[in-house]
Amino acid sequence: MKQHICDRVAALRKMMKEKGVAYYYITTADYHASEYADDHFKEREFMSGFTGSNGNLLIGMDMAGLWTDGRYFIQAEKELEGTGIELFRMAEEGVPTTLEYLERNMKEGEVLAFDGRTVATRLGTQMEEMVNKKNGKVFYQVDYVDVLWADRPSRKCEKVFALDEKICGKTVAEKLDMVRESMKKNNCTNLVLSKMDDIMWLFNIRGGDVACNPVALSYAVVTEDNSYLFLQEKAVTEELRVWISSQPVILCDYEDIMVFLQEKKWSGTVLLDKENISYAIYKVIREQAEVVLGVNPTELLKSMKNDVELQMMKEVYLKDSLVVCRFMKWIKENIGKIPMTEISAADYMDNLRRETEGFLDLSFPTICGYKENAAMMHYQATKDNYKELAPEGMLLIDCGGQYMGGTTDVTRTFALGPVTDEMKKHFTAVAMGMLRLLNGRFLYGCTGRNLDILARGPLWDMNIDYKCGTGHGIGYILNVHEGPQNVRWRFLEGVKEVPLEEGMVLSNEPGVYIEGSHGIRTENIMVTKNGEKNGDGQFMYFESLTFAPIDLDLIDISIMERKDIENLNHYHKDVYNKISPLMTEEEAAWLKQVTREI
Amino acid sequence: MKQHICDRVAALRKMMKEKGVAYYYITTADYHASEYADDHFKEREFMSGFTGSNGNLLIGMDMAGLWTDGRYFIQAEKELEGTGIELFRMAEEGVPTTLEYLERNMKEGEVLAFDGRTVATRLGTQMEEMVNKKNGKVFYQVDYVDVLWADRPSRKCEKVFALDEKICGKTVAEKLDMVRESMKKNNCTNLVLSKMDDIMWLFNIRGGDVACNPVALSYAVVTEDNSYLFLQEKAVTEELRVWISSQPVILCDYEDIMVFLQEKKWSGTVLLDKENISYAIYKVIREQAEVVLGVNPTELLKSMKNDVELQMMKEVYLKDSLVVCRFMKWIKENIGKIPMTEISAADYMDNLRRETEGFLDLSFPTICGYKENAAMMHYQATKDNYKELAPEGMLLIDCGGQYMGGTTDVTRTFALGPVTDEMKKHFTAVAMGMLRLLNGRFLYGCTGRNLDILARGPLWDMNIDYKCGTGHGIGYILNVHEGPQNVRWRFLEGVKEVPLEEGMVLSNEPGVYIEGSHGIRTENIMVTKNGEKNGDGQFMYFESLTFAPIDLDLIDISIMERKDIENLNHYHKDVYNKISPLMTEEEAAWLKQVTREI
Repeated sequence: MKQHICDRVAALRKMMKEKGVAYYYITTADYHASEYADDHFKEREFMSGFTGSNGNLLIGMDMAGLWTDGRYFIQAEKELEGTGIELFRMAEEGVPTTLEYLERNMKEGEVLAFDGRTVATRLGTQMEEMVNKKNGKVFYQVDYVDVLWADRPSRKCEKVFALDEKICGKTVAEKLDMVRESMKKNNCTNLVLSKMDDIMWLFNIRGGDVACNPVALSYAVVTEDNSYLFLQEKAVTEELRVWISSQPVILCDYEDIMVFLQEKKWSGTVLLDKENISYAIYKVIREQAEVVLGVNPTELLKSMKNDVELQMMKEVYLKDSLVVCRFMKWIKENIGKIPMTEISAADYMDNLRRETEGFLDLSFPTICGYKENAAMMHYQATKDNYKELAPEGMLLIDCGGQYMGGTTDVTRTFALGPVTDEMKKHFTAVAMGMLRLLNGRFLYGCTGRNLDILARGPLWDMNIDYKCGTGHGIGYILNVHEGPQNVRWRFLEGVKEVPLEEGMVLSNEPGVYIEGSHGIRTENIMVTKNGEKNGDGQFMYFESLTFAPIDLDLIDISIMERKDIENLNHYHKDVYNKISPLMTEEEAAWLKQVTREI
Repeated sequence: MKQHICDRVAALRKMMKEKGVAYYYITTADYHASEYADDHFKEREFMSGFTGSNGNLLIGMDMAGLWTDGRYFIQAEKELEGTGIELFRMAEEGVPTTLEYLERNMKEGEVLAFDGRTVATRLGTQMEEMVNKKNGKVFYQVDYVDVLWADRPSRKCEKVFALDEKICGKTVAEKLDMVRESMKKNNCTNLVLSKMDDIMWLFNIRGGDVACNPVALSYAVVTEDNSYLFLQEKAVTEELRVWISSQPVILCDYEDIMVFLQEKKWSGTVLLDKENISYAIYKVIREQAEVVLGVNPTELLKSMKNDVELQMMKEVYLKDSLVVCRFMKWIKENIGKIPMTEISAADYMDNLRRETEGFLDLSFPTICGYKENAAMMHYQATKDNYKELAPEGMLLIDCGGQYMGGTTDVTRTFALGPVTDEMKKHFTAVAMGMLRLLNGRFLYGCTGRNLDILARGPLWDMNIDYKCGTGHGIGYILNVHEGPQNVRWRFLEGVKEVPLEEGMVLSNEPGVYIEGSHGIRTENIMVTKNGEKNGDGQFMYFESLTFAPIDLDLIDISIMERKDIENLNHYHKDVYNKISPLMTEEEAAWLKQVTREI
């Protein structure tokens, strides 16, 4: 029994009863629709004990449910055991969404409560509509968990810094022009931003208020004539204040955003992104101005990296790939000789990265899973729960860094010794899929949904699937996950898919996850390029940014097509040619061997 | 100069001027949103001279534009030459849709006119909205072309017949139950149908009012308690009348539909398919009842063939594939020995089909294109314009039949003698693509957009595309094209994609079309099947219904992967095993040779 969780849920129910609330909804989000919230915002984790990066909790008087996605099913089952909280497996057949659950179960006149700062406008308005139909009420200006959470960590407030213009490729003024042009196309005269990475991109600044994400707690408002940047007062250094005063930007206090929005004399319409602007902000603005619900123009602009950014990223990825090579060499040569655990291996990798020039931070906590632990997609070893490594089976390591010049993300799976034939077949199919997508040729207009089967096909041919997307966008000295592009296969009604544009950077990470047995993932980061343009259209292709070996000890050549073998050999040749010049002679000789032609 | 077309456009403009109309819009459609309209309805062809099966004409005072899709660009260019009508290439970069064109060019207060019986509700309401914004008017109860068209063919009125229940798999009563269940799920109490193939399916009847499509001009209304079938009085035989009286169906006169809809006392809501119900019908019903715009539930139900239908289709496809084999043998053995033209070759094919047991009609006019003519996707040889065949180059033949037991569609491209290496590479890539899609394995939830790249990939790898979908649904003794499933790649915002369901039948027809040089298409029909179901979901695959050889004289094995070679050899083995028992000994020996392992 996890008594502390049961106690917290009971305490919340007591408060709900006092306030006349039938259901209380707790998200994973901060006030900025961040994928990874800082500890201060982890109310859902506090209330449920579930530590995954995606999941929402719904507490009723006789029910408690946690919704999470396929990456976390195994982990959530373990973490929820003994809490009385039921796991709802998102997107599985017959499993309702939270909204559908409420629609079916809420009774006439009941009250739904949530902290409106942590719920996106889209969901908030859907919930409002649903509750209104039942003649109920929504309380959204509440935060009951805050009352229960005695030792809640305080909000972070790291110093904000401006990036050197030379590594941004565009000035703030140029970016504001691009954003205003997009606003005009959407017939909007004002834009409110609360997504931190969009704000960092627009103003060429970075912060440190979310672990591994160099973003600062912030809001921004762009009008036709002005731009307002809201930062925590204590996060602004004198140097930054001077720099901002030289930019077409008005600096405001983070705490003043709601008052500003309420008191501003809006002229024209206000563009809000319904996925990223909180319901609380939406409600304030809707009282003052005509709201247009759309997409942040910053999102698409940010995703298409400019030439300076791409050049910086290429260099950073070579250094980061060198780190992976060195890790591979170390673990292959030392396994069974020196004691190792999932934690010490991750530490070794992290330290190699920390020693790398330009390193700022990890881009996410390193995932290092041995044997069956790797079947948990986002497994984190802890000091109470980790595996010793031995010279057998496979180790999966997924890691990345923030560098002054780019954000990296890479996964490799290594054989530490003997493995089964099945593991080899699975590994080979994953490698084939990754390389088929990397080598895909397609027409402009394709979205990730058109291409997903290139990576997933070799696994589907074996009646195996992985329950996550194949790829995500990746930031530039920013969040390791960003939109709007992705590589996924499921059709979602009403969701606008974004064509892949030149300069978009994507991950390519198929995998196999066999519960209780093994997990495999091979992940490269790649950039979208324009190829031949002819009467049939603009053809496109990808270029890899990642150059790290794919473990030949795990390759079963018998299931590969000729093209797959060519793909692998070409890739390994590139790895050798690009990384060996950065190596010692001994390292280069080793790399030559592990990237040999098969 | 095509003077008659210029004269017609001038006469229309004169009428428009008299009536105060700025733009007149002419569709390809009949009143039933049929893909192929009977001659009576071909106003667009009469006014423009363009004979393709898809295209809309817009006439203004100083402009005349024809919009058509990529299948017809080459043909439309030729046919429009000298008419003063400009070609608008649908879906090409920078080309506005008709609606966008009108939005940009219509002036304040102007009038747009069209025959509302031939415009779908979706487009009609969009046009209404757009014109309203400009304070203009829509005249939709007009048909100016009818006035100009002196020798307009009369409306067809072939006898309607009931199908033997044994080959339908479901009775009318059972189908009505399925439809009403779907209506209930959509919270609708009434359904109005005007799509003829849906009506034929629902009532287990067939007609002959559209060339090659065994459908009758008809409407239907399904309420909670009754069903009404509207047929032309002269189309109803005594036998049919007796049969209908034994069914839960009330027979009504086709001419009475508008009055019926107007006078009906509707209880509850009326479900209309905005793509298939005409704007004229929509306007009448909207005045009387609450309209729910949705999708005909008949469409999805019809697309998932039941076991009886599939069994019948399997047998019919064997007979139809035998026809293709015999044609192939004949043309390969006789080319250069006896005179042949595109027309005589098509006739030979058609006659083989006509001699086949159960044959009712062709399912579309046979397309037989030699050399560069095959680059026109829907080329039709005419007695004034055809090519002689010679023992060189390639012949493309795309054809199919209506049988008492199924509708067929098949395309093969044959070498008649020496061909270039490039042609072989193109043919081989097409065959690889067709076979890769046919052998694709995928998860339930995939739509055609997920799979299109399997067929198109080998061509995209060569920077070649074909400007049409890869596959369409196919009817059962019905239209050769039906929805809702398809295999296409382009993302269309707001268009709901349909997951592939067990029993759905699809074409699989990649191609290469090199203007002025050659055209290649290889088309099989396949049925969607459930495969293994496991923790990852329901896996699915396809089974071929078509068993006709792929011309080995055109195969360049050097560009094929091992899996492609296996695919081809397995397929050819199946062709031999399934078709040879239907053949003479001499034919079987020939088939053995052309389906030999490579």
